[in-house]
Amino acid sequence: MNHEGSLFKQVTIVGVGLIGGSLGMAIKKHQVAQEVIGLSNRHSSLVDALQNKAIDRGFHDIKKAVETADLVIMATPVKTIVNLLPIVTKYLKRGCIVTDVGSTKTTIVDCAERYLTSAFFVGSHPLAGSEKTGIIFANPDLFHQSLCLMTPTPKTNRAAEEKVRALWTSLGARVKTFTPLEHDKILAYISHLPHLVAYALIGVIPDEYLPYVAQGLKDTTRIAASSPYMWNDICLTNPKNIVHTLDELVKRISLLRKSILLKDEQNLIENFKKSKSKRESLDQAPEPNAPSTGPI
Amino acid sequence: MNHEGSLFKQVTIVGVGLIGGSLGMAIKKHQVAQEVIGLSNRHSSLVDALQNKAIDRGFHDIKKAVETADLVIMATPVKTIVNLLPIVTKYLKRGCIVTDVGSTKTTIVDCAERYLTSAFFVGSHPLAGSEKTGIIFANPDLFHQSLCLMTPTPKTNRAAEEKVRALWTSLGARVKTFTPLEHDKILAYISHLPHLVAYALIGVIPDEYLPYVAQGLKDTTRIAASSPYMWNDICLTNPKNIVHTLDELVKRISLLRKSILLKDEQNLIENFKKSKSKRESLDQAPEPNAPSTGPI
Repeated sequence: MNHEGSLFKQVTIVGVGLIGGSLGMAIKKHQVAQEVIGLSNRHSSLVDALQNKAIDRGFHDIKKAVETADLVIMATPVKTIVNLLPIVTKYLKRGCIVTDVGSTKTTIVDCAERYLTSAFFVGSHPLAGSEKTGIIFANPDLFHQSLCLMTPTPKTNRAAEEKVRALWTSLGARVKTFTPLEHDKILAYISHLPHLVAYALIGVIPDEYLPYVAQGLKDTTRIAASSPYMWNDICLTNPKNIVHTLDELVKRISLLRKSILLKDEQNLIENFKKSKSKRESLDQAPEPNAPSTGPI
Repeated sequence: MNHEGSLFKQVTIVGVGLIGGSLGMAIKKHQVAQEVIGLSNRHSSLVDALQNKAIDRGFHDIKKAVETADLVIMATPVKTIVNLLPIVTKYLKRGCIVTDVGSTKTTIVDCAERYLTSAFFVGSHPLAGSEKTGIIFANPDLFHQSLCLMTPTPKTNRAAEEKVRALWTSLGARVKTFTPLEHDKILAYISHLPHLVAYALIGVIPDEYLPYVAQGLKDTTRIAASSPYMWNDICLTNPKNIVHTLDELVKRISLLRKSILLKDEQNLIENFKKSKSKRESLDQAPEPNAPSTGPI
């Protein structure tokens, strides 16, 4: 499992933003690889990644960046991952392991299993990150005590799966395993729905009321400052699950609306009480084996 | 304006929870009154308020609590304010000023202007407080750099209005003035809507997914831990405006839903960009005269 004490000899990170940059820093901090290579089509991103010691060397050229890698981590928005995988695969050495950090998994895993022939793919989704983007927000402890969801399939090479699991646990993350379908269904509720709600909620506030906004609305809409491109990709690669959660939310809102119009106090209080108790349960100390609750 | 250096001789606070308790502490800290009296029907609340030095004396008896007051501050949930005003008014001395901290204003101001005959009423709504309740979360600086909305009407006594304004500014709040109708329209958007959304959002998350919830959903639903009784009162006293904002939100969600199903990337990205920029504007430094953004 070791190459002179490291889990990997060379790790290449494709995309060196908040997650890619933090990965580079964390991999170097925990000596998970002997060398970290960064790939980006933006010169300034590579310079920033080098200056922040997130990577040892940076390339614009895909072949140069990946051809000697033992592990390639795709850390771009989902659609870019899907676009790059068929190209990247051409330059990988036999037995190279590929993982990713994409927020939806079905599309990515399908694409990887179609195009990656001589390399081993295992899907990952570290529940880290935030509405912030770019390496200036990167930090080597981003994955410490976070949860990482892995999405192996019956086609996944078990040794590759174990090495990717070792990567995440080395960085301090706890790993849970789901099928890609389960992952996308769960994430639609716990991440995609709240992001769309935040975008919609701030969207309907009349501009002239913005000076009076206080902490409640600010917290409720913090994640509406997330990357529009990243969230477009997520919406287009998990549409069925997301639309289902939107419909569930609208149903719930319609019930509240009806109770308000009917002055149905019993129903309103009962509803609010259930939600309050559910929300408060999230702040309880996690069970020994429960995942952490880092930013998502 | 002064009674031996204080703005008021005796202030009586009706309800000594988070807001009432914090008011007592702040009034004593800033020497706004010579004596602070607390009224509560719960013995333990009075004991807690005394122990936390939020009040100098506490009563269960309405008459005893208010008969010598120069200022009475109604600091209970909205419906309790409306139920108590017709009783409290019987015991007030001539010229007593009454204000409140209720989250909706039309119902309260209508009630006060109907029942308060020999006292002067001015509606207030300090945008402070949070999902926490009870005096254990009270603090004397809760109103410091916060925004307080006052809702005088053509019937309001101007001297009383100025004294209530002086109360809030003495506690460090900035005051903005609206009609009760304007207040309820604005608050429906910036406070009532996000609370209902938070209750609905956490409500639809399947229980089995709760272990995987992370910071995004937690922030989006923090205010769902707010008091069910307080929010029932708010819903029932501002139904028209709240239902309107719910309808606006559902319309916006339906547009997003449609764009997702049509894979309309341009529309999704445009929509997300506008929301992102609007949300980011809330984190800009406020203009010199802009209100603060304390918890609401």
